[in-house]
Amino acid sequence: MPALPEFFEVVRRQRACRTFRPDGVADDLVEQVLEAATFAPSAENRQPWEFVVVRDAGVRARIGELTRQAWRGGGRAYAESRLSPQLLADVDRGAEGEVSAAPVLVVVCVDARRTHETTIPASIFPAVQNLLLAANAVGLGAALTTLPTAFALELGELLSLPEHVRPLAVVPIGYPAHALGPPRREPVSDHAHRDRYGSRW
Amino acid sequence: MPALPEFFEVVRRQRACRTFRPDGVADDLVEQVLEAATFAPSAENRQPWEFVVVRDAGVRARIGELTRQAWRGGGRAYAESRLSPQLLADVDRGAEGEVSAAPVLVVVCVDARRTHETTIPASIFPAVQNLLLAANAVGLGAALTTLPTAFALELGELLSLPEHVRPLAVVPIGYPAHALGPPRREPVSDHAHRDRYGSRW
Repeated sequence: MPALPEFFEVVRRQRACRTFRPDGVADDLVEQVLEAATFAPSAENRQPWEFVVVRDAGVRARIGELTRQAWRGGGRAYAESRLSPQLLADVDRGAEGEVSAAPVLVVVCVDARRTHETTIPASIFPAVQNLLLAANAVGLGAALTTLPTAFALELGELLSLPEHVRPLAVVPIGYPAHALGPPRREPVSDHAHRDRYGSRW
Repeated sequence: MPALPEFFEVVRRQRACRTFRPDGVADDLVEQVLEAATFAPSAENRQPWEFVVVRDAGVRARIGELTRQAWRGGGRAYAESRLSPQLLADVDRGAEGEVSAAPVLVVVCVDARRTHETTIPASIFPAVQNLLLAANAVGLGAALTTLPTAFALELGELLSLPEHVRPLAVVPIGYPAHALGPPRREPVSDHAHRDRYGSRW
């Protein structure tokens, strides 16, 4: 990897990583990745994000239990008929334990006092995306997961979140256990329209 | 700007641009920016995004009216007590007309048939963020706006959106009318926690 990765190269090689080597991730790398997250836009530039960086094995294991519970309690049934067998197997291994086995779990929360309810997603997920891209840029693997946030109350209790701080995503970070291939994406022309929906781009 | 902008440089200089030169933006640049958007992650890799690229002056003017209506009908009153006078003036000019005067408005929608209701924000706003970053990377200005989506029905009618396709953001794209300074952000340490909320990073 070059010292200064090129922007579009990072964008084009982003893949969800759900299986990690046990090696730890240095604090300064975690901080570099979090700093990138804080440069995302937010409604009124309110920066309502809070990042709980979990390294504690017990806390990670408990987040893993909540993930499994959400997966077995509905996530899997919903996904089963929709995913390719290969992707389903990958997500299944992740939800059953490999994601929470990442050395670092970043629980991304919103401080709901800082922003209007309607602008929460637009103020948090861009930061999550910066976090994911930055992790990729420095050679780490990461993934955007939301399954454990189905148990927001339990997660809040586990992480001592005040009532106004709500978890929206859990991002596992670590060194990928194996090389990730290129992402599979449909062409722009399948998703772009000119002036009106259905008008060919 | 270098031909191949460095990833972290693009991340660190991202700023909302709300005032644009009238110069048009070539189709291939728009496509490069949209392609970057399609490399974002989405739940189950369902890629539920649809991009309506609006250049038509009449349609842009109508989106401008909806933006003004949302701004005057509540957005401004909410923002007034919360924003610095400088930011308020900037947003005010944008909402009153300068944003919709951008040569290109990308209306980012979700195809709700493609994804579960709960995963819509996590499947759309990362793509919006890629779009914004990519615009910055190629020297364009852009901003994440959600005001006009308060009138989703009117916007849907204007853009011939089917019922299952809902607008979530409107991103103006064009060449910045003036240089944008560096973004203002709070330090990571104000937003990061170790293992539990409130435990110093």
